[in-house]
Amino acid sequence: MSSQGLVTDDLSMDGNFAYDDNWYIYDQKGDQDDMTPEVIPDCHPTIPYDLYHACMAPVSLAVLLILSLLVKRKKLYKNCWDGAPGLLRDVPLVQMGPFLNHSRLCSSLSPVHFLEEEGHKGLSVAVFGILFSSLCILVLDSDPLPFISGSSTQNREYWKIMALLYYPAFYYPLIACATVRHRAGYFLGCLLSWCHCVVHLWQKVECPQSPKIYRYYSLLSYLPIILCLVVLSLWYPAQLVKSFREQKRKKVTVEHVQVFCVCFKLPGSGYYEDYLKNILAKRTPNKSISRAKPSLLSRIRSYVCSFLYAPQEGFQIPLKLVLSLATSVIAVYQVALLLLAVFVPSIQIVRSGMTKELTALFIQFGLVPSENPAGIPGDKELATLKHYIWSLEVCFVSSLVVSCLLTFCMLMKSMGKHRINLQRLYQGAVTDVFYCSRKLQPSQQALVCWMFFASFQTAFACLGLLIQHIVFFVCTVIFTFFVVIPLQSGSNMLLFKIMENMWPFWLTLVLAVVAQNLLTHYYFLERGRLPRELTNRRALYIVTFLLFPINVLVGVLAGVWRMVGSALYNVVHFCRLDVSMLGHGVEVFDPGYRTYCHYLKIEVSQSHPVMKAFCFLLLQVCTKGSQPRDVEEGVKLMKTRACSSKGSKGKRSRARWFLAYTLLNNPSLLPYRKGALSDSTANGMQANPAKP
Amino acid sequence: MSSQGLVTDDLSMDGNFAYDDNWYIYDQKGDQDDMTPEVIPDCHPTIPYDLYHACMAPVSLAVLLILSLLVKRKKLYKNCWDGAPGLLRDVPLVQMGPFLNHSRLCSSLSPVHFLEEEGHKGLSVAVFGILFSSLCILVLDSDPLPFISGSSTQNREYWKIMALLYYPAFYYPLIACATVRHRAGYFLGCLLSWCHCVVHLWQKVECPQSPKIYRYYSLLSYLPIILCLVVLSLWYPAQLVKSFREQKRKKVTVEHVQVFCVCFKLPGSGYYEDYLKNILAKRTPNKSISRAKPSLLSRIRSYVCSFLYAPQEGFQIPLKLVLSLATSVIAVYQVALLLLAVFVPSIQIVRSGMTKELTALFIQFGLVPSENPAGIPGDKELATLKHYIWSLEVCFVSSLVVSCLLTFCMLMKSMGKHRINLQRLYQGAVTDVFYCSRKLQPSQQALVCWMFFASFQTAFACLGLLIQHIVFFVCTVIFTFFVVIPLQSGSNMLLFKIMENMWPFWLTLVLAVVAQNLLTHYYFLERGRLPRELTNRRALYIVTFLLFPINVLVGVLAGVWRMVGSALYNVVHFCRLDVSMLGHGVEVFDPGYRTYCHYLKIEVSQSHPVMKAFCFLLLQVCTKGSQPRDVEEGVKLMKTRACSSKGSKGKRSRARWFLAYTLLNNPSLLPYRKGALSDSTANGMQANPAKP
Repeated sequence: MSSQGLVTDDLSMDGNFAYDDNWYIYDQKGDQDDMTPEVIPDCHPTIPYDLYHACMAPVSLAVLLILSLLVKRKKLYKNCWDGAPGLLRDVPLVQMGPFLNHSRLCSSLSPVHFLEEEGHKGLSVAVFGILFSSLCILVLDSDPLPFISGSSTQNREYWKIMALLYYPAFYYPLIACATVRHRAGYFLGCLLSWCHCVVHLWQKVECPQSPKIYRYYSLLSYLPIILCLVVLSLWYPAQLVKSFREQKRKKVTVEHVQVFCVCFKLPGSGYYEDYLKNILAKRTPNKSISRAKPSLLSRIRSYVCSFLYAPQEGFQIPLKLVLSLATSVIAVYQVALLLLAVFVPSIQIVRSGMTKELTALFIQFGLVPSENPAGIPGDKELATLKHYIWSLEVCFVSSLVVSCLLTFCMLMKSMGKHRINLQRLYQGAVTDVFYCSRKLQPSQQALVCWMFFASFQTAFACLGLLIQHIVFFVCTVIFTFFVVIPLQSGSNMLLFKIMENMWPFWLTLVLAVVAQNLLTHYYFLERGRLPRELTNRRALYIVTFLLFPINVLVGVLAGVWRMVGSALYNVVHFCRLDVSMLGHGVEVFDPGYRTYCHYLKIEVSQSHPVMKAFCFLLLQVCTKGSQPRDVEEGVKLMKTRACSSKGSKGKRSRARWFLAYTLLNNPSLLPYRKGALSDSTANGMQANPAKP
Repeated sequence: MSSQGLVTDDLSMDGNFAYDDNWYIYDQKGDQDDMTPEVIPDCHPTIPYDLYHACMAPVSLAVLLILSLLVKRKKLYKNCWDGAPGLLRDVPLVQMGPFLNHSRLCSSLSPVHFLEEEGHKGLSVAVFGILFSSLCILVLDSDPLPFISGSSTQNREYWKIMALLYYPAFYYPLIACATVRHRAGYFLGCLLSWCHCVVHLWQKVECPQSPKIYRYYSLLSYLPIILCLVVLSLWYPAQLVKSFREQKRKKVTVEHVQVFCVCFKLPGSGYYEDYLKNILAKRTPNKSISRAKPSLLSRIRSYVCSFLYAPQEGFQIPLKLVLSLATSVIAVYQVALLLLAVFVPSIQIVRSGMTKELTALFIQFGLVPSENPAGIPGDKELATLKHYIWSLEVCFVSSLVVSCLLTFCMLMKSMGKHRINLQRLYQGAVTDVFYCSRKLQPSQQALVCWMFFASFQTAFACLGLLIQHIVFFVCTVIFTFFVVIPLQSGSNMLLFKIMENMWPFWLTLVLAVVAQNLLTHYYFLERGRLPRELTNRRALYIVTFLLFPINVLVGVLAGVWRMVGSALYNVVHFCRLDVSMLGHGVEVFDPGYRTYCHYLKIEVSQSHPVMKAFCFLLLQVCTKGSQPRDVEEGVKLMKTRACSSKGSKGKRSRARWFLAYTLLNNPSLLPYRKGALSDSTANGMQANPAKP
């Protein structure tokens, strides 16, 4: 095999595959086979990328400006939501501590709050998917920025870095349109997403093939972008229609609400109320039934089920986790596609271009068995060599399939783990999650890790798939060429010969281990009553001494297993951020696990569902500001109940409720109260967060 | 470089180095250098190995027979220890539960109890060292059994397996002589160890060189055996002299003790009494002082000190741990010696045999830079090539030194960890050690793991050193050839060129991380009072979105670091059994860690120092059986004190003391009481083992 054919696995960051120019050498040579691809014609789409970006970039900018103007205008109409949100937005809400830190709930009219759980998850996932797919295409592209083509290698570096910032800005309006929660925003979003979608589809229909890497690689790598754009261009019209319908309904029912205010009910509040109801509901006595020891079958079933993430009633995975899962899946798709596109067509070309002259070389190296003693290859040898290359291809594809499946399983399992960890943290069981006590407060480190989280999960999924694939490929190739092919053809029996020569050795080790187990069971441990006690100590010590050398050899095997097992474990679990690769006590030095822990901290401290439900309740009270009696009634109700049951607890919660109510109505007091309030609330939340 | 010269790292289990015959090809060729070794003359020692084993094996057998006869004879003299131990030995002591399971203390006259803490540690270490070194030599030997030389390859396998059992039996009398604790045993031990020692020394003085692997390899690999034999042949005479002296002293002081009984005071009991005293002593109020946060310097100092195992007052490491440490150290020595002997002389021969013709080959492959455009090598190119080979040698030796030092550090650190874990388990803190609750009772699995422990530790030290060395060697070679040599010579600047081309990329990543940290510190987190709260959420979300692609690239770097870091961590910690290579929750699938956990279980359940101290106290009472008043006085004393202070506890301990006393004096009751006694004692020990 020539060296050119074998360098196909060369994945460089800038994607300039060195053998790109040699690609079609095989084409002209080996045209005796059907596999050889035709020359791909040069294709120039009606709307080239340059023109597309040159048009859409200003349009996006204009959309952003329109949106900001819209928000500014709405801010001036303070009585839009009956005054309450406008009133809230006047005070420096961000200084109100965790209690009212969820001021973003009130100010959800700005075009930025797309990373809140209240946002529409599908939208965020689609836009992040587009962004990540663009990054994947960008990394391998020779023209990173659409405006500057044919730049030198030196400059390309700079343009690539610029492109890393350009693409997020370019796609940002797609998400900003939705977060305004305004009909005009939805309309602009419709237009934008349709434009993007139509241009991309048109380009790919006109030019489905490209000479880069593999003829359909470009088309396939753009597939996630197109899918995400299709989702967006369906989602925006749906929202527009929905907003018209809601407005109609409200016109009929609520007379005094301004028709311009579309989203009267705070979005997402339903989940938090459900969560609160779920927690406050009586526990079902299922636990007493499950106390009995589960059977092996049910344990296996529950183990298999742990790999399938099934949504749980009354619990939603936070948006950032959904995002990271989605981008990870896209990452797996892109890496697998790249690996397939790089390897499979090349090796097929190599296989079809294989001649008898090349076979002679392989026979000389002893890689292909020859019946002819002079080593002159015949048809049989050529067929054998082609079969070997085909086996390589099969190994590659099967290992890729296995590693993709394993990565998906691991991502699913880690989702389940995330849910368990979040639920534990919501309940205050910090040590169960981190194995040590930690404060669930935002810190600089924690916030930076929160920003990194989705990116790290995506990057780890890429790397994890790559490493898994390399390891599995090597393993399957070894298995194929040392076990399967020898069994098929009867040649190259190296492994079997070694096994045959060493069988007394293996037998001795097995016998020694079995003997020690039997001796322990029947001779060194008392039989009869539990706990079993040691007996025949003399014999135990003598056996330990006599079998010491054999046990050392058993230990060598155990050591090899330890090495292989831990390597495989780490390779398979690489994409999971919730599993530390390091030992107990030094877990924090694993960047992935560290990011995960800090992410959990921020998530729990900032988005505890009970706290959010409380905030929503407060906000709904504010929105219906014309009837403050409800709140006062609530206080009164609490008073009578609290006094009768538990003195101190009732007093505390009553005092807090009063405080919150007073502060809501007298925001100018806030800066003076904030410290005490945030402290007491934080303590209260951490001490007993499940029962506020 | 020819392929023959490069296969030197080929370590096969049966030690038949394929290039053994080609060893001296370089010799005849490259004799222009001083490094070339002379041909080693055939050497036949006066006492060949065959003769030595043929003589010593029957002698050892005879010694064993004499020892057994001696023990049998002593068993008939029941009144040797004033009757008490004899009386105890009559009943089936092994059924007496953990309370009196330490019946081995009474029956320490048999030639087998060499794995007790009470035994002399030096002796066991020396004999296990001899055994393990023999195994190392045996594995690489072509004549595994001394009696059968020149066997075929097929048969050699069988002989090797036989040898694995022969050597322990051959060296067993060396340890058996001491455990009899009898002057005759010491005398026989003297003779045996002197014989072994003199024969080995004589052989090595006569034939210091051997043609195998390296001329002095055989001598150096026998060094641990000879050292251990020297220790034994000094230890036995010392014991003999000591026994004579003690006998004299006792003759003067105690008139009624039979002169034949040498070891009147139970050996090892001193430590347990000290331990008990140490525990019962008042705690020093050091803890209140250490509450203050330690300074960075003191923390660094304590971290460095954790790698140096310093003995602690009032605590002795169990014998099995000392054994495993000693054999591990010998294992490291043997592996390092083998690696050095295989690699360094061969590469020196390759270096000295390097010619200009061979240099041309390297220049053609582009491995050696050439100023001559035609690639014809001059003296300068030859010198460069020799310098490169010398660098390889330096890399090899330095990486070997580093990995040896690291392995020692890890072994020391794991000793410290063992001590901490044992102390915690003695105090009943099971979850602190295993991170889950476990029963400290012997089971089949646990006992088999106890038998495996020392062997596994030794094997893991071997494998760990090998893996560490390979990894460090590759790392140092990469560092040398991509950083040091380019800096020296200015050629082969590949890495620097890549770094130069990619610096904008690195700079961007660094800037992005720094910018996110600064933004978080000054803009996204409130300054002022703690706990710091999130602010400017809009900007936070926008920054997270815009920097997503760059953060993915940061994530790729973090992933690479995760991979490299965890691999290095696992490689460095491979030799430590107390560190699991797998993640939290699946630790048990790591064979090393599993063995360690089970070993700890057996160690703590069977050799709790407090329990042993109690057993010793009981036995001493039995030994002075003529004055039973002491015990009764003890009971009375306990009665008055217990009644006054704590009712239930005092009653329980009083009842137990009565029970033990009654059972000691009425052994026929034992089979009926055993269950209840062992249960209650075991519970008592586990619930509050520090205060019996």
